[in-house]
Amino acid sequence: MLKAAIIGASGYTGFELMRLSVQHPHVELTSVSSEKFAGKKVGEVFPSLHDKIKIDFKSISEKKGVSKADFVFVALPHKEAMSVVPQLIKLGKKVIDLSADFRFNDPAIYENWYQKHTAPELLQDAVYGLSELYREKIKNAQLVANPGCYPTAVILALAPLIKNDLIDLNNIIADAKSGVSGAGRSVVLSSLFAEVNEGVKAYKVAKHQHSPEMEQELSLIAQKNVSLLFTPHLVPMNRGILATIYTTMSKEMSEDEVLNLYKNFYQNDIFVRICPLGTFPSTNQVKGSNYCDISITIDSRTNRLVVVSVIDNLLKGGSGQAVQNMNIMAGFNEELGINQPALFP
Amino acid sequence: MLKAAIIGASGYTGFELMRLSVQHPHVELTSVSSEKFAGKKVGEVFPSLHDKIKIDFKSISEKKGVSKADFVFVALPHKEAMSVVPQLIKLGKKVIDLSADFRFNDPAIYENWYQKHTAPELLQDAVYGLSELYREKIKNAQLVANPGCYPTAVILALAPLIKNDLIDLNNIIADAKSGVSGAGRSVVLSSLFAEVNEGVKAYKVAKHQHSPEMEQELSLIAQKNVSLLFTPHLVPMNRGILATIYTTMSKEMSEDEVLNLYKNFYQNDIFVRICPLGTFPSTNQVKGSNYCDISITIDSRTNRLVVVSVIDNLLKGGSGQAVQNMNIMAGFNEELGINQPALFP
Amino acid sequence: MLKAAIIGASGYTGFELMRLSVQHPHVELTSVSSEKFAGKKVGEVFPSLHDKIKIDFKSISEKKGVSKADFVFVALPHKEAMSVVPQLIKLGKKVIDLSADFRFNDPAIYENWYQKHTAPELLQDAVYGLSELYREKIKNAQLVANPGCYPTAVILALAPLIKNDLIDLNNIIADAKSGVSGAGRSVVLSSLFAEVNEGVKAYKVAKHQHSPEMEQELSLIAQKNVSLLFTPHLVPMNRGILATIYTTMSKEMSEDEVLNLYKNFYQNDIFVRICPLGTFPSTNQVKGSNYCDISITIDSRTNRLVVVSVIDNLLKGGSGQAVQNMNIMAGFNEELGINQPALFP
Amino acid sequence: MLKAAIIGASGYTGFELMRLSVQHPHVELTSVSSEKFAGKKVGEVFPSLHDKIKIDFKSISEKKGVSKADFVFVALPHKEAMSVVPQLIKLGKKVIDLSADFRFNDPAIYENWYQKHTAPELLQDAVYGLSELYREKIKNAQLVANPGCYPTAVILALAPLIKNDLIDLNNIIADAKSGVSGAGRSVVLSSLFAEVNEGVKAYKVAKHQHSPEMEQELSLIAQKNVSLLFTPHLVPMNRGILATIYTTMSKEMSEDEVLNLYKNFYQNDIFVRICPLGTFPSTNQVKGSNYCDISITIDSRTNRLVVVSVIDNLLKGGSGQAVQNMNIMAGFNEELGINQPALFP
Repeated sequence: MLKAAIIGASGYTGFELMRLSVQHPHVELTSVSSEKFAGKKVGEVFPSLHDKIKIDFKSISEKKGVSKADFVFVALPHKEAMSVVPQLIKLGKKVIDLSADFRFNDPAIYENWYQKHTAPELLQDAVYGLSELYREKIKNAQLVANPGCYPTAVILALAPLIKNDLIDLNNIIADAKSGVSGAGRSVVLSSLFAEVNEGVKAYKVAKHQHSPEMEQELSLIAQKNVSLLFTPHLVPMNRGILATIYTTMSKEMSEDEVLNLYKNFYQNDIFVRICPLGTFPSTNQVKGSNYCDISITIDSRTNRLVVVSVIDNLLKGGSGQAVQNMNIMAGFNEELGINQPALFP
Repeated sequence: MLKAAIIGASGYTGFELMRLSVQHPHVELTSVSSEKFAGKKVGEVFPSLHDKIKIDFKSISEKKGVSKADFVFVALPHKEAMSVVPQLIKLGKKVIDLSADFRFNDPAIYENWYQKHTAPELLQDAVYGLSELYREKIKNAQLVANPGCYPTAVILALAPLIKNDLIDLNNIIADAKSGVSGAGRSVVLSSLFAEVNEGVKAYKVAKHQHSPEMEQELSLIAQKNVSLLFTPHLVPMNRGILATIYTTMSKEMSEDEVLNLYKNFYQNDIFVRICPLGTFPSTNQVKGSNYCDISITIDSRTNRLVVVSVIDNLLKGGSGQAVQNMNIMAGFNEELGINQPALFP
Repeated sequence: MLKAAIIGASGYTGFELMRLSVQHPHVELTSVSSEKFAGKKVGEVFPSLHDKIKIDFKSISEKKGVSKADFVFVALPHKEAMSVVPQLIKLGKKVIDLSADFRFNDPAIYENWYQKHTAPELLQDAVYGLSELYREKIKNAQLVANPGCYPTAVILALAPLIKNDLIDLNNIIADAKSGVSGAGRSVVLSSLFAEVNEGVKAYKVAKHQHSPEMEQELSLIAQKNVSLLFTPHLVPMNRGILATIYTTMSKEMSEDEVLNLYKNFYQNDIFVRICPLGTFPSTNQVKGSNYCDISITIDSRTNRLVVVSVIDNLLKGGSGQAVQNMNIMAGFNEELGINQPALFP
Repeated sequence: MLKAAIIGASGYTGFELMRLSVQHPHVELTSVSSEKFAGKKVGEVFPSLHDKIKIDFKSISEKKGVSKADFVFVALPHKEAMSVVPQLIKLGKKVIDLSADFRFNDPAIYENWYQKHTAPELLQDAVYGLSELYREKIKNAQLVANPGCYPTAVILALAPLIKNDLIDLNNIIADAKSGVSGAGRSVVLSSLFAEVNEGVKAYKVAKHQHSPEMEQELSLIAQKNVSLLFTPHLVPMNRGILATIYTTMSKEMSEDEVLNLYKNFYQNDIFVRICPLGTFPSTNQVKGSNYCDISITIDSRTNRLVVVSVIDNLLKGGSGQAVQNMNIMAGFNEELGINQPALFP
């Protein structure tokens, strides 16, 4: 059994990591921490895990359970993450960090969109944990920076096009729609049920902090600068991200050709599925699963290629991909513990 | 009292017309028809209107109630509408048709996206009922073609930019998100609660029949050809459309300048409100109201101008605008009966 | 114009009072207060009221706007309400208080379920504002204690039976289901969208503070002690309460007889509607309206009479009834400003 | 591998059986049938099962796939089920039928609430598949009649009380709240999103066909007649049933004593969990899981015991319990393939 700890286990991604650990045949949790619920039984706070996890929540500062772990998942907000990760690295733990703190190669970009970076020395060795694109590097990483939810949906949707140099790199628009769990479990007015329900809204138009993360990764694929306009929206549902991505083709291709290119690109990636032409995915076909489903359409009238991708923001967009990365790092079958089909309806 | 009839009163837009008629101080319903519920009391089918409307549903073929009316709202599906409108016109009725049947100047475009047109002779005199843009023509129209819900949200958002020649007319993307009532009250699998709830999906990507309607109207404003890529999405909520529109600026302007331009453009239009810079509207701020709220953002990094507009698809996007048009045609105050603020939460 | 002030205008009932005031032909708001938003324009905080209410939020401690008002609505949490009401009474204002602070005749009961009462001298003259039952007293009241949302639904459902001595007074069960706005606008974990959505739960089983309020009022109707078991539930929707009430008949009657008894009891009450036998109301037929719809069923197998009532918790269960009471106190038509039919869907 | 077939696999319970089969380590599907989708790939109709189930839907009349199966799940509507089950029994298949057709011992009761029974000869040997109560009989059954969703929630909640003779058997009220998938996947107006969303309603008050099923089973436990008043409600969520059950105690007991009695009663039942005193379950703590969580409260003021139970109607209330029964029949660990914790949020 692989021994794992979760630091910050009472937010939505932390809780999801607990749920997935319970389902994983080779994982044993040695410690789960939560400042808010320290001292309480997991099952007392989350009745759905009653008897599934029998340990108590510990304070984040308590080190014992963590010290027994081989793998540590850090599910803290950014800034807090970089205050605990360096010590874990020193202790020789394998670390999968779900915050933004170790996703950027260049600390200046991080500092431009977030705040001062307090552990920039770790950035060089941190591996960006988009499993399909960095599988080989992840295998040997000590620190994996798990991607943001929106970047996962957008990068997977664009990688085949950019890798094959098929689109105008300065003319990409990503319009994404997210369920409310994407806003986290912070207790704020704007996340109250009656504020959010029965409404859809845009936010941080062209100013969301996931933009530079997408641009960094897409530029690495392109080997030149990619700029992208990104607009996130909030949709009244618990889970799910749908990204609608508008690109301008730089070559003429048929839908069939593009479809095949996607299928080939992801032929060894169990969690990426390409939809038949003319069908468009709903987030509810990936809800509760680790899949990313992608659909492509060419609008010959405007010479544009529209890509639609869907993920569950807490699974492929968060904790599911973290477990996928753990599987890769531990040499397990990549699907282990996360191969459930979606819960529908 | 203005005497009005509603043909097709048991769908969502038809029902909304009944609800609005009840609230209108100068409207008396002489007849409401529904094939499905003919012979039943309105309050029996829709308990919320119990004692508010005391007449029975009539068959659509029954002419008596209609013959007493001065105004007739036709809330039938397209194709059915054009089978009843010609006769109403001959009888001298003022007609507001909520279908697509009389929205196109060129029957060939209609026939390309819908079906054969059986009353093309009426197209020339039909006035496109986007109240803010065609107020003067609507005043004297006998037949008003009430706009589609998506076109209302998109055209209002783009008109000031196009009228002032500020954007690239071949580089417009409209990504719209609609509540489920937009799909109508047809009993189909894809509209069942458990199919739709907790999911968001794209549909008819780049192939929705509202595209040519938007292009026709935007081209008329531009006085040259406008082409636009339109993608609609379905969101799990009852009402509301949010359109996120991506344009490329052909002139350099500041956000303040654009904001003022919008404010001036709509300065006499009570139902169009421009949001302060940096704020983005939610559909829940217009739910149950006839407003269209518009927000603009410039992304200087990509030289794009993003416009976000929200409406209630059944009000400004349908029956509310129909009543607004009736008010204009009857010489009433444009707000009469439709000036309620949104229902929130 | 009647001059009115709202103290505590940024919660859901306070906001609803603003919305209703805008729609009321004879009301002018002189002041709206909110500690949280003091100094901000109403339209800045609530964009749906942009240009509808042009005054700013004031601090609750500021007295100027209130001093100009004839009527003051107090929409503060209990405890805070009784700290401001006594002064308003001294100033000669007519006060409609939406908290629980003045609903009890006996301060001991209040203190048993809430906290120490700091203005018990006002309890004697306060009138319980269930409009249909206390219309005459409300006419001349200076202080109206607006009923709780659950008590409104339950008392209206039971009054005809108890008044006519038809049921066992010690054998009443009220099982109520409420939308989330009933929990108020407090920023707490348990009201977050993702905590509440896609789940239904019971809370405060047999221990909710609305129980003694129901028992007080039902006992007054019965002229003897009534005891009732009340269980509230939280349902994932914005608005609405449905109460399912189980009683044991002490006389044999047919459903038709009971139906007629209800119709007679409420024959002069525009806002109470009795459903045809065999039909059961949904909260969505009263959403956004001030109606209470009631359905009765006799289960002859178990000799029980089941009453189902529905209201909008923010209208008939809160601010709508407050305006109804204001209409009664001001000598207006009882329906003024609150006679809209429900918003459906 | 156990070979299984599903007859009627495109409704919600049929689909859920496919999903669970995919997750079950010892099940191989030999055939899935659907009249509507015969000839189509499963993954084409349900994209979430793409590549998980590679066979096509067959017509129900096609026998080949079924003939290879050892176990057959019948997920047809009642009436249709009894037209296919007799032949399966003759062929020696083990059958788990999810309809109501084989749940009644007495065909007269079935015929009173449903329709004429066409295979009454099978009723005697059919075992009522409430796993916790009939485990021993299920082990050796050839035909298991899987319980209704409401009866599962209600019977599990009441069994310990009735078995121990603690309550008045003529004074039981069950008030249940169900998500919309409980209405099935039939395409009817009343199940449309916009009809159901944002509303809660009662239906079939005191007349629901699950009443006699509950009474039969509770009477068997009591060894005397139990009569119960049952009211179902529809709640705007996909999944989940919460039953609030009101009983009158015939003995005086403390909450602790009752709690222990429940814990003892279900001590060997992994899927039934008893909540700590003072806590009340939400359906979202069992969503996507096979658990039934039960909470008890004594209201000493009215001498009543209130039991609240929650299940996922498609799992413990349907397909999950069907797989649990299959595990029992096949001699597998009872939890196999259905031991996932709930999906939250």
